[in-house]
Order: sequence, then C-alpha cells, then structure tokens
Amino acid sequence: MGSINARSVLLQATQSDAFSQIQNDILLSSSLWVNIALAGVSILVFVYMGQNITSGRARLIWGATLMIPLVSISSYLGLASGLTVGFIEMPAGHALAGQEVMSQWGRYLTWALSTPMILLALGLLADVDRGSLFTVIAADIGMCVTGLAAALITSSYLFRWAFYLISCAFFAVVLYALLAEWSTAAAEAGTSEIFGTLRVLTIVLWLGYPIVWALGVEGLALVQSPGLTSWGYSGLDILAKYVFAFLLLRWVAANERTVATSRSEAAPSSAPADD
Amino acid sequence: MGSINARSVLLQATQSDAFSQIQNDILLSSSLWVNIALAGVSILVFVYMGQNITSGRARLIWGATLMIPLVSISSYLGLASGLTVGFIEMPAGHALAGQEVMSQWGRYLTWALSTPMILLALGLLADVDRGSLFTVIAADIGMCVTGLAAALITSSYLFRWAFYLISCAFFAVVLYALLAEWSTAAAEAGTSEIFGTLRVLTIVLWLGYPIVWALGVEGLALVQSPGLTSWGYSGLDILAKYVFAFLLLRWVAANERTVATSRSEAAPSSAPADD
Amino acid sequence: MGSINARSVLLQATQSDAFSQIQNDILLSSSLWVNIALAGVSILVFVYMGQNITSGRARLIWGATLMIPLVSISSYLGLASGLTVGFIEMPAGHALAGQEVMSQWGRYLTWALSTPMILLALGLLADVDRGSLFTVIAADIGMCVTGLAAALITSSYLFRWAFYLISCAFFAVVLYALLAEWSTAAAEAGTSEIFGTLRVLTIVLWLGYPIVWALGVEGLALVQSPGLTSWGYSGLDILAKYVFAFLLLRWVAANERTVATSRSEAAPSSAPADD
Repeated sequence: MGSINARSVLLQATQSDAFSQIQNDILLSSSLWVNIALAGVSILVFVYMGQNITSGRARLIWGATLMIPLVSISSYLGLASGLTVGFIEMPAGHALAGQEVMSQWGRYLTWALSTPMILLALGLLADVDRGSLFTVIAADIGMCVTGLAAALITSSYLFRWAFYLISCAFFAVVLYALLAEWSTAAAEAGTSEIFGTLRVLTIVLWLGYPIVWALGVEGLALVQSPGLTSWGYSGLDILAKYVFAFLLLRWVAANERTVATSRSEAAPSSAPADD
Repeated sequence: MGSINARSVLLQATQSDAFSQIQNDILLSSSLWVNIALAGVSILVFVYMGQNITSGRARLIWGATLMIPLVSISSYLGLASGLTVGFIEMPAGHALAGQEVMSQWGRYLTWALSTPMILLALGLLADVDRGSLFTVIAADIGMCVTGLAAALITSSYLFRWAFYLISCAFFAVVLYALLAEWSTAAAEAGTSEIFGTLRVLTIVLWLGYPIVWALGVEGLALVQSPGLTSWGYSGLDILAKYVFAFLLLRWVAANERTVATSRSEAAPSSAPADD
Repeated sequence: MGSINARSVLLQATQSDAFSQIQNDILLSSSLWVNIALAGVSILVFVYMGQNITSGRARLIWGATLMIPLVSISSYLGLASGLTVGFIEMPAGHALAGQEVMSQWGRYLTWALSTPMILLALGLLADVDRGSLFTVIAADIGMCVTGLAAALITSSYLFRWAFYLISCAFFAVVLYALLAEWSTAAAEAGTSEIFGTLRVLTIVLWLGYPIVWALGVEGLALVQSPGLTSWGYSGLDILAKYVFAFLLLRWVAANERTVATSRSEAAPSSAPADD
C-alpha cells in the first residue's frame, strides 16, 4: 500500500501545488481565465454564425474553425487546474539555474491539436491539395512537440536551445507553405483577399510565440515573471485564435458562394453541379 | 544511483500494484480478459471474412474495421498489465474524497485511436467528403483527450466536471455529423440501410460512455465498485466495437458492388471504370 | 514547498542520470551523435536537392521526405539529452530480471511520427488512394505505440511479449499493403522501378527492428550491451531513413515529369492540365 500512495501523493502534490500557486497569483490566473471566458464566448458566437452556412466546403471550414476555441478552452482549463503545469529545475547556464520554474507544458501539447485546425481552415480556404495540407500539418505538429521537448529539458542548457532551433526549422516549413505554395492556390480559388489578411495575421502572430519563449522564463529569462510570460502567450492566443477565427467565419458566412465552388470539387463534375 | 532507483521504483510499484490488484479482483479482471479474448477472436474472424473482398473502397473499409479489434486488444492488454492504470486521490467534493481510486486512464488514450477507426469506417461507408471526415475525427480525438483530463484531475472537483462538459461538447460535434451531414451522404451513396443501423448502434452505445463515467467511481460514484464500472465500459466496448464491426463487415462482404461504385471514385471517370 | 521539489527532483534526477550515463559510454553516445550529425547533413542536402522541384506532387513527396531527418534529429537529441530515456526494472522471467535496464523509449514515440512520413512518401510515389494511406499509417502508428508498451511493461514478462506480438500484427498490415496493394498502384502510376527498390529497402530494414528488439536488452537479452542494442537501431535508422530518403529524392528530382502526371490528379481534368 505504501508504494501506491508514494507515487500518487507526488502526482497530486504537483497538481495541487500548481493549482494553488496559480490561484494566488492574480496576473497568472487572469492570463488563463480571460482565455477560458473568451474561448467560451467564441464557441457560442461561432455556433450562432454557422447557422446559415449550408454548402459543403463552407460548413467544413466552419467546423474546423469551431474546433479552435474548443481546443483552446480545454487547454486553459488544463492549465488552470494545474493538470498540465509542472515545475522545472533549470540547468546550469540558465539565468535561473537551480531554481524551480513553473512550466506550462500543457500549452505545447494542446497547440499540437489547435494549430493544425488553424492550418486546416486556411488550407481549405485556399483550396490547397490534401497532401500539401498533410505535410504542413505534420511540420506544425513537429514544431509543437519539439517545443515541448525544449521546455522540459533540465539536463543541459544547450539542449534546450537545440530543440528551440529544431522547432524553428519545422516552423520554417510551415511559413514557406503559407508564403509561397498556399498563396498561389488561394489566388486560383478566388479567396486571395481574405487569405492574404489571415496569412499576415497568422505569420506575424505565430512569430510572436518563439519570441515570448526566448525572452520569458523558459529561455533567456529577460522577463522573469511567470505571470507576464503567461500573458505573452495568452495575448497571442487571443489574437491568433479567436480574432483570427472570427474574421475567417465572418468572411465565409458572407461569401459562401465563392467558397462553395472550389477547384477540387468543381473539376470532376462534367455533370452539372449537384450540391 | 539512489536517484535512478527512486523514480523507477515508484513507476514499477504503481504498475505492479495495479497488476496484482486487478488479478485479485475477479469482477475487474474478467471485464478485461473477456475483451482480450473477444478482440482476439474478432481479429481472426475479420481476417477470414476479408478474404474475398477485392474492390478498392470495400477493402479499405475492411482495413479500417480490422484495426478496431487490434487497437482494442492492445488497450485491454495495457490495462490488464497495469501499465495504463493509476491510482487517483479524489478531490474534496467527490463522494470518495481523499480515497485512492483506481483510474483506467489507458481507456481514454486508446479510444483516441480506436474510435477514429469506427468513424473512418462509417465515413467511408457513407462516402463522405475527406475534409468532413477529418473534422469529425478531430472532434472525436478532442472528446477522448478531454475525457482523459477529466479522469486525471485531482486538484478540484469542479474542474473534473468542467472537462466532462467540454468532452460532451466535442461529442455533440460528432453526433451532429452522424445525424445530419453523413446521413445525407449515405443516401446518395446508396448505403442508407446499413448506415442507418450502424448509426443508431453507434449513437445509442456511445451515449452510454458518458453515462457510465457520470455514475461510476470517477463521477458521482453512485456505483462505487471499480469492477462494475469497468464492466460498464467493457460491455459497451463489446457491442460498439466487435458487434458493430462484425455487422459492418458482413454487409460489406455481401454488398461489395454497391460499395465499389462510390460517388467520389465514379465521378472523375468519364473514361470507363478501371478497377 | 517540499512536495514541489519531491517530484521535480525525481524527474530531473532520471534525466540527468541518463544524460551523464550516456556521455560516459562512448559506444552508446556515438550511436546517438552519429545520427544527429547525419540527420543534420541530410536536412541540408535535401533542402538543396529540392531547389529545382516545382510540380505539385513532386514537391509534396519532397516535403514528406524532408520531414524524415527533421523528426530523426529531434528524436536523437531527445535521447542524447536524457529526456526520453528511462530505467526499467525487468520483471521475473527476463534474463536481466530485477536489474535496472536503460530503455530508450523515446525511439518508439518518435517512430510514430517519422515512419508515417516514410509511408506517406512511398504512398505518394505509388499514387495510392488517400484512404489506403490513412489505414496503413494508422496501423503503423499502432505498431509504434504497442512497441512502446512492450518496452515499458515491468509487471510481467509475458505481457512484454504479448505486446511484441500485437505490434508485429500491426506491422503485418503495413507489410501486406506494401507488398500487394501499393505495388499494383505503383505499376499504374509508372513508378514501379523506384518503388520496387524502396519497397525492398523498407521491408528488409523494417524487419530488422523487431529482430533487434528480440535479441537486445529489452527482449531475450542475448545482446546485453545497451550500446550495441542502441547501435542496432541507429544503424537501421541510417539506412531506412537517410539513405532511403536520399534515393527517393534523387529519383524524384530526375523524374519529375513522371511524378507530375499522377493518376488521381490527371483523371479529373477533362479540361487541359493546369499546373
């Protein structure tokens, strides 16, 4: 019986410690609860906005977009409950070497589910090839998983940055697709205007995440407050997720006809359109 | 050397404790071994049933269906070995607050792999759009992952139910697709009859899982026996996985012609059929 | 505060122990660093080779192939840092029963991301149906995840081999697709020659992994050196990943026209080709 308790006590201890430490830090807890509230409101608004969307591809973009705040609210509930938060002892070389630093590792894990949805929505909007979508989403998941590794390494300071660089290399694949390949596809699909806006929004905001990592407690620790670091990510999430999704959905609802006649769906029908 | 042992001793202790605790509880261990046996038999039967299936899409449905008992046998071996079982100390507010409750968290993890296969088989049968399939499978994985979070939270009773509700929201997306969108597709593909049967089976049985969670040791604990709770899930798995898969495969084997000429494969060929 | 430290000390201890134990074992550390170096070189070479690839499907194969060394370098950095390495106490019945054995469990986890990329590249080359690709990749992920389970079980020797067999069953699904279904597709796509070469390479090398497992420290322990076991996997990775990817890319770069006119892309266009 002793051994049963030994491990579970440790696991519960970390979770409860993180839970109470977050509750006692207004800056930190507000960075989480604001997102839970906004994600909740977004879900309701998006369900309402999707009521009149009827055509196949438009409803699909709506489905992928609705998933973004759903994953986000799960992510922030996981952080606020302490379930996906840990304490990392930084290795020699780090500005906070030897100190226990709160790591919100759950963010990286849930980004691996939410960012593919953003790329899926963008890819469907640009009407890109399914294979291209797969490759870009795989690179995106690689980016999140290596970001998780960078956050969790405690044995060596150099390895933390090695994973940071690998994560950036995966990011470069995503950026390349957004800037080159997918833009061409969007032009052909007649969705250039909104795709251009959302692409700029995505690229600029997504560049913010590695910058927050580098400056925050997990990187160079120029910003040493866990609350401020957390707000860095939370602010980016608000813009890159809810605002992004809102702009996308508003455009889709207003331009359903353009979206309805996609190249890949239109091409096969020598027979008349049947949707 | 001390620290190497410290952690591994803990990990092994939990696994061995779970292993022997399961072995000593006939109700609990029977709920696992019955599924291991049935999954094993299903694999053999399904391989046999697939011998004469030759056309592309029918063989694909067969492949996805065969994966269901393969994932299931892995899942139950993981539980029976104690690898994917843990002990959770319930938070204040829970009926068993402060007690160590066995959590079969591996179920949620493997459902994230097996339920997409069920949806894939259904989606192929109804000949739905690949993108729709992707969105529904993503919602399904979200449902399983948030279910896992609900099971693992020990810091707060409210958060357990918050994740329960989020998981149900993901489930609602899946239900909506099955009830509305996919039914229309099945009618067009000429597979309405069998799709209708399997859809009812899936919806009714899948609704059982959140009910077992709510009534069992992890939720309201109206049923406090881990063995009975485990049998609740195991019974649902038997019907929703092996019986479901058997009905699907039997129909596909008998109606290969209907399945072979899918809308999405037939449309492009202005040239004569070439399979 | 004590409990915060208790868990993180354990986690950091394992990671640091693994880190220093690997550094002090030249055979072991060389098996990791050679792969980090080769994966790094491969990334640079592959980026260079892809410069002149312009057509859609060829660039896609290039993208999937480039992902292989990117995932691989992440995997080996994870092992070398000690993050994805653990110490397992073997159960009764195992040749090293009761001893602490180093388990490079991160390999199984990253194979679940890198081997799908290999299958994706092969599938695109053979121009197989997207659904077939999905099923085979699902079986492949099942193979890696059950391999991970086999490596982590410490409660029972029999269960280790039960998972080994399940993993082999998933592998059989992959082998069947490569040998039967996909070969037919490759013949139709006009890529039989290179597909045949890569298929033999993949089948022969992939069969090596379960053999290394069975002979190495995790299985029968006929080879008891962690360094030699690690080199077994590392050698296979060098051939099955970098050499495989190089051969594939060289062929695609030289035969872009063949790849460009795929069956699935060509079929819908009764209108003239538009890429």
